[in-house]
Amino acid sequence: MTPLETVQAFIRAVEAHDVDAAIALTAPSISYENVPIAPIVGHDGLRATLESFLGPAAEVDWQIGRELAVGSVVVNERLDRFRIGDGWLELPVAGFFEVDDEGKISLWRDYFDLQTYMTRFAELTGG
Amino acid sequence: MTPLETVQAFIRAVEAHDVDAAIALTAPSISYENVPIAPIVGHDGLRATLESFLGPAAEVDWQIGRELAVGSVVVNERLDRFRIGDGWLELPVAGFFEVDDEGKISLWRDYFDLQTYMTRFAELTGG
Repeated sequence: MTPLETVQAFIRAVEAHDVDAAIALTAPSISYENVPIAPIVGHDGLRATLESFLGPAAEVDWQIGRELAVGSVVVNERLDRFRIGDGWLELPVAGFFEVDDEGKISLWRDYFDLQTYMTRFAELTGG
Repeated sequence: MTPLETVQAFIRAVEAHDVDAAIALTAPSISYENVPIAPIVGHDGLRATLESFLGPAAEVDWQIGRELAVGSVVVNERLDRFRIGDGWLELPVAGFFEVDDEGKISLWRDYFDLQTYMTRFAELTGG
């Protein structure tokens, strides 16, 4: 797979709630960085975080808009959609990925507005 | 200039508080999109917005990290730094730009966490 295909496969695994398949596409030393929050390093932290935001979502639909790949770097603009209860949480995201020589994602860095997520999450969960 | 050079020149103009030079590098129909906020279209809105965030800043230092250019699209990761009073406001940003056939920036879309900006701005201005 090319780096672009690896990132696309990773996102499809996330959409399918298949955390094992997603993690299999990442390096053990992956740095997973939600920019407004602290970075997470390694598979255990990645698994815990994926499970925490996939858990409440009955459906996950991450729509990829623009995507660019240059060498080992992949960038995408996404609308990350989560169905929670009766509604959808929609989060615009800019994602930066690095894919290592073994074809594994070694960096995943997402830029987004945390309050957009928090406010809508509270609306949908009555929190 | 290449699209990448155009974007670099634009950022240097912003750092120099030279709003006229910055605007001269953009298309009249530019869409300027701070993702957590409503998009702004056209030179008048761009000027007003640039002046509003450059005004309080004694120094502006936008550090470009990763940058990619594919065709007419330029993407960068930045640390946008503003000196306000005695301190620096530092905002991580992912920027997406399109440069049109006349070499003018027709899209500028920044992804960032609005609360990061607001909280630090309030700290620095005592607001």
